[in-house]
Amino acid sequence: MTILALTGGVGGAKLCLGLARVLAPEEVVFVVNTGDDFEHLGFHISPDVDTLTYTLADAANPVAGWGRQGETWHFTEALEELGGETWFRLGDKDLALHVRRRELLAAGQSLTGATAQIAQGLGVSHRILPMSDDPVRTLVHTRDGPLAFQHYFVRDRCAPEVTGFDFHGAASASVNPAIPFEQVTGVVICPSNPFVSVDPVLAVPGMREGIRHSGAPVVAVSPIVGGAAIKGPTAKMMQELGVPATTVEVAKHYAQFVTGFVIDAVDADAEGEVQALGLATTVTQTVMRSLDDRIDLARAVLAFLDGGAQAGLKS
Amino acid sequence: MTILALTGGVGGAKLCLGLARVLAPEEVVFVVNTGDDFEHLGFHISPDVDTLTYTLADAANPVAGWGRQGETWHFTEALEELGGETWFRLGDKDLALHVRRRELLAAGQSLTGATAQIAQGLGVSHRILPMSDDPVRTLVHTRDGPLAFQHYFVRDRCAPEVTGFDFHGAASASVNPAIPFEQVTGVVICPSNPFVSVDPVLAVPGMREGIRHSGAPVVAVSPIVGGAAIKGPTAKMMQELGVPATTVEVAKHYAQFVTGFVIDAVDADAEGEVQALGLATTVTQTVMRSLDDRIDLARAVLAFLDGGAQAGLKS
Repeated sequence: MTILALTGGVGGAKLCLGLARVLAPEEVVFVVNTGDDFEHLGFHISPDVDTLTYTLADAANPVAGWGRQGETWHFTEALEELGGETWFRLGDKDLALHVRRRELLAAGQSLTGATAQIAQGLGVSHRILPMSDDPVRTLVHTRDGPLAFQHYFVRDRCAPEVTGFDFHGAASASVNPAIPFEQVTGVVICPSNPFVSVDPVLAVPGMREGIRHSGAPVVAVSPIVGGAAIKGPTAKMMQELGVPATTVEVAKHYAQFVTGFVIDAVDADAEGEVQALGLATTVTQTVMRSLDDRIDLARAVLAFLDGGAQAGLKS
Repeated sequence: MTILALTGGVGGAKLCLGLARVLAPEEVVFVVNTGDDFEHLGFHISPDVDTLTYTLADAANPVAGWGRQGETWHFTEALEELGGETWFRLGDKDLALHVRRRELLAAGQSLTGATAQIAQGLGVSHRILPMSDDPVRTLVHTRDGPLAFQHYFVRDRCAPEVTGFDFHGAASASVNPAIPFEQVTGVVICPSNPFVSVDPVLAVPGMREGIRHSGAPVVAVSPIVGGAAIKGPTAKMMQELGVPATTVEVAKHYAQFVTGFVIDAVDADAEGEVQALGLATTVTQTVMRSLDDRIDLARAVLAFLDGGAQAGLKS
């Protein structure tokens, strides 16, 4: 069996950690959004890839939700003194990853190759695959005009009101050739932001097709619980796009692509509406506070893929 | 008046700090060896330029003799974990300088321009000029074969027995056009290593000529005191080259170029031999332990340039 997990940042990485604890390295492949990637200070920054790498290495910063545990900031402080850009902070340890990645990329390695080598250095044995080795850059359209993703997300702290999204480069990008679609027995869309974490992954030509041709059930875990996002701007974006911030709306967003939908217990009353979309459903506790929560949700999702979600398979 | 001070690493930087404390920014120009420069981890490393910059900024590490005060090493530790090269250690704060310099160079600035901007950021108002903006790389010939300077100096800790030196690129390098030769009223060769700190500076076409044409007196401060080097491999190199490690031999090394020679009080008995080489001499305390020592030596050197060293001027 090979499970494909499509993921973005922190929320998705939590479920991926659960999956990595219950599945062997050969049983799961993590396909990560790179729409957030950008060049900064001469480094290739890949926030979602790094968040997952640090999370699986048990080296992630549990408070910030990005960067490394026990991080220090002497580099950024000194850079500020020298008049460098510091709106996007790089920790002293995190810099080592970025210097190493630049070396590997400069030596001709793909982002996939560099990611694998860095993950190995951190003791991660599960496969972390960028959605593509080609640049795809998420552009956030706002009432204040278009913003590069990190300008919207980090520099402007998601304040501007969003009106839509573009994934520059997606049309001409190639899906990561290392994704073993033909072996895939189940697909999990992690509880990441549908608009800026999952949609960029699905926008890469060949991604949807590869998953469809695998014939495997596809289940999405709602990032919206009780009308709010666990983390990040998902709910705010939905409201700004004129859509109620509900799990049902997330289900509608994915309805044409997924066969099953995982609803949090607090949204149990939405199950009928989601089923009315033609999706199989399962209701469980999806808020992941502890490692056990992550493992429990991973088990529930895998059980759903083996059982109910099969029923939802589009013929 | 404009004093030109030719300098290398730590020893030279000490005298430069003294000169910077007694001379206004418009009265002195520091011309720095870049033969030690190399590319490492994708950064342009310029050890002597940085040692002087940090020294004049009062930010140098007084113990190590390189890098910054109160430095931390989280980057290097994390890089080691990722399998990166760590024989040449970059501190977390020092990295900020290197990231900033790469940005400035990538934006098309010369090493001179980048150096000036970084120095300004650190509050240094005196002029620090790399000997050239073109790459010159010191090659150390040893009984074990030729070694790039930093491999000899840092990686191999000066252990291999030296047989000679080459300054790759020197022949085709242009002397830094910002050096105001026509205004120079005195030249100081700081107590740096004659072979790998000062000779590379003098090997840049136009450097000796520019100084000669200025007609200014040129004085060298002996880096050898009492038969030993205050710091670094100067004495060891002289022995390996079959030359006694004495202040007289250093005077011979510079005799064709300098008009005056500064001898340490402990080598006072060598004064006659140095004068026999046709050089004016002055005897003073040259070992710089305190800031006052640095200032006192700077004053003694300037007085020598104004007085006795004039007498030594070659006609």
